Amino acid sequence: MKILTPNELASIERSVDSGTKEQQQIVQSIIADVRERGDEALLEYTKQLDGASLQQLRVTQEEFVEARQSMQQYDIDILQEAALNIRRFHEKQQRPSWFDTQKDGTMLGQKVTPLSAVGVYVPGGTAAYPSSVFMNVLPAVVAGVERIVMVSPASKEGTLPAEVLVAAEIAGVEEIYKLGGAQAVAGLAYGTESVPAVDKIVGPGNVFVALAKRAVYGDVDIDMVAGPSEIVVLADDTARASDVAADLLSQAEHDERSSSILVTTSLQVANKVREEVDKQLETLPRRAIAAKSVEDYGGIILCNSMESAIDVVNSIAPEHLEVMVEEPMSLVGSIKHAGAIFLGRYSAEPVGDYFAGPNHVLPTSGTARFSSPLNVDDFVKKSSVIYYSKQALETNGDKIARFARLEGLEGHARAIEQRKDDSQ
Amino acid sequence: MKILTPNELASIERSVDSGTKEQQQIVQSIIADVRERGDEALLEYTKQLDGASLQQLRVTQEEFVEARQSMQQYDIDILQEAALNIRRFHEKQQRPSWFDTQKDGTMLGQKVTPLSAVGVYVPGGTAAYPSSVFMNVLPAVVAGVERIVMVSPASKEGTLPAEVLVAAEIAGVEEIYKLGGAQAVAGLAYGTESVPAVDKIVGPGNVFVALAKRAVYGDVDIDMVAGPSEIVVLADDTARASDVAADLLSQAEHDERSSSILVTTSLQVANKVREEVDKQLETLPRRAIAAKSVEDYGGIILCNSMESAIDVVNSIAPEHLEVMVEEPMSLVGSIKHAGAIFLGRYSAEPVGDYFAGPNHVLPTSGTARFSSPLNVDDFVKKSSVIYYSKQALETNGDKIARFARLEGLEGHARAIEQRKDDSQ
Repeated sequence: MKILTPNELASIERSVDSGTKEQQQIVQSIIADVRERGDEALLEYTKQLDGASLQQLRVTQEEFVEARQSMQQYDIDILQEAALNIRRFHEKQQRPSWFDTQKDGTMLGQKVTPLSAVGVYVPGGTAAYPSSVFMNVLPAVVAGVERIVMVSPASKEGTLPAEVLVAAEIAGVEEIYKLGGAQAVAGLAYGTESVPAVDKIVGPGNVFVALAKRAVYGDVDIDMVAGPSEIVVLADDTARASDVAADLLSQAEHDERSSSILVTTSLQVANKVREEVDKQLETLPRRAIAAKSVEDYGGIILCNSMESAIDVVNSIAPEHLEVMVEEPMSLVGSIKHAGAIFLGRYSAEPVGDYFAGPNHVLPTSGTARFSSPLNVDDFVKKSSVIYYSKQALETNGDKIARFARLEGLEGHARAIEQRKDDSQ
Repeated sequence: MKILTPNELASIERSVDSGTKEQQQIVQSIIADVRERGDEALLEYTKQLDGASLQQLRVTQEEFVEARQSMQQYDIDILQEAALNIRRFHEKQQRPSWFDTQKDGTMLGQKVTPLSAVGVYVPGGTAAYPSSVFMNVLPAVVAGVERIVMVSPASKEGTLPAEVLVAAEIAGVEEIYKLGGAQAVAGLAYGTESVPAVDKIVGPGNVFVALAKRAVYGDVDIDMVAGPSEIVVLADDTARASDVAADLLSQAEHDERSSSILVTTSLQVANKVREEVDKQLETLPRRAIAAKSVEDYGGIILCNSMESAIDVVNSIAPEHLEVMVEEPMSLVGSIKHAGAIFLGRYSAEPVGDYFAGPNHVLPTSGTARFSSPLNVDDFVKKSSVIYYSKQALETNGDKIARFARLEGLEGHARAIEQRKDDSQ
């Protein structure tokens, strides 16, 4: 890993994949086709792109039972405990509808209503991602969403991983369709004979999924389109180099485009971490991916003060931030922009990926400046509620009418003055 | 206005203006140009598109003073009272950072942080919109946003309306740039010599502004791109036809593409409202606009039960909903989708546009299915905070490592197991 000064931060590139024109056109044509031909198009694309010849898209009760039977009870127990922790953390985020009353009889408030229908995309490919099921489904469950639908691309044999089915069952989802790519997003956005149209689509996916989500945004809501995973470790001279290196590599192994950055005030830690990264890489199964990620998008920023180090962290606005300093709590107030903040030696980032409770769907690519981890608020919407009393309108009617006329809207003023007439 | 059955609802079109290919290309080229040439490009476009030759973009202290002096004190008082009401309603939405502790020493929470910098677009043109200043700026002020910047297109003489400047001053904004259109959005998204780059851009505008907001989305956050204004009045036979008609017209006068719909269980009210609309139209200054809007996008849906009427309302998911029935409160729980709900005879929609307190920036085009009125949550973001104790990791470490291996991520498992080693 290269050691740089804060001024050289910009030399660490951040990978963005916004898709080629050709990919965008492919996605547009898939969406148009699914809107026109429905299930027929979905089955064709699933055969053509996922290599699976399906008779029906929906996962059956038998498949759920088989999945449960194929897993070890110890693993099911772990999934259940993780789901419980995640559910509990998200239950703390629930908010009631509220109202406020005034002496003139006015009542103003916000009605909080769960979304009616949500679609969750769970990526497929070589590995199974039960954690992705939990993190995307459970906030919607806690929010009270009436209908939660999952989609995930089938293998060539037409199956989904047991872990994904069992996780879905634990989370409380039993409506799953074997669908991936842009066709899955199109199906959820506009509905087909067998797939229901939803109000919001969440969950990670490849570039085609990301482009499809962008394309349907507005007709339905989407979560943020995620970039490659990122970690920044903020360390002083009390940090253990072997911990830091292991955590940097745990992020680097995700993807060649992942970003792992150490920001430190200690030259000694910088040098030791560099050595440790090389050493730990040697035996890592996914070392080809991790080594390339560290080389292309990793780096060590050496700062001459903790203040300068915090400025660097805030200017990166990382997805994951680990704070490995003598007094980690004392820095929380200074950190403006980070998706998740991990404090102290024992708060290794995978604790948050799987088990502790907070969501692992986090803002990437610097969007922590304005975005939040996936949370219960993402699955409810608010409506303003306005009750104005006769007395309130008598007191304020002239002012409201005057304000409307200041903006040139006579009809607005008349709608107010209309209420003065009690005769009709 | 035409009278229809619930089954004919689809025949009432909803206008959407997503821009032509040509407009999209114009917007893309303006954005690229502003990114490259900064202020020089901004000044050129302002001359070319707004017809204003400016020496400097920023509004001066003298301009604020002149604006205040040009307004009547009565009008300034109204603006101040409205701002106070809006501020108070939004203060009720503030939420603290929170954390939860567990017996094993774990501490989990959410840190709530205001956005650092926000840009507010205030439309120009023939009228002044001080209400737009309040509704977009005050939630950001209440959220604690550090830097709030306003942009609004200047007149040919290079001025902004007095009401807009005074409203900005009342709201607490003193950094205003005379900028409109796609160039204003580009300046705020990427920054120039004189305009700061912000983290989020909010506020309504024409199709060029909307296209530019969509184009910069991801690099910065934006609010929902708004469609034409909409009202649905839900009425039983206790509603006064003249009130209903006045309120339908107050929405219709906004724009030829606005939508005004009555949903009622009463044939008598339906017929009376139709007559009243024609009668009230005769003397309305903006009758050409309102008549076309009512003709093209308006309608009366006659339902044979209140249940069916509520289904119609929910399927429209209107921006504004007025409930003019005998017991308006009793229906609030049944209304799933609406931006703002106005209850009873005295809660005329303009009460909410200007004065009561709730925001008038509301989800349009059916997006009330998943979106909320502009609110304080839109100007803060959350960061997860995770402190895991040594004991927590000892208890759960093996489970977390096992979960990671289920997903094929060995590096994640090792980052956890690494902590077992206390020797270094």
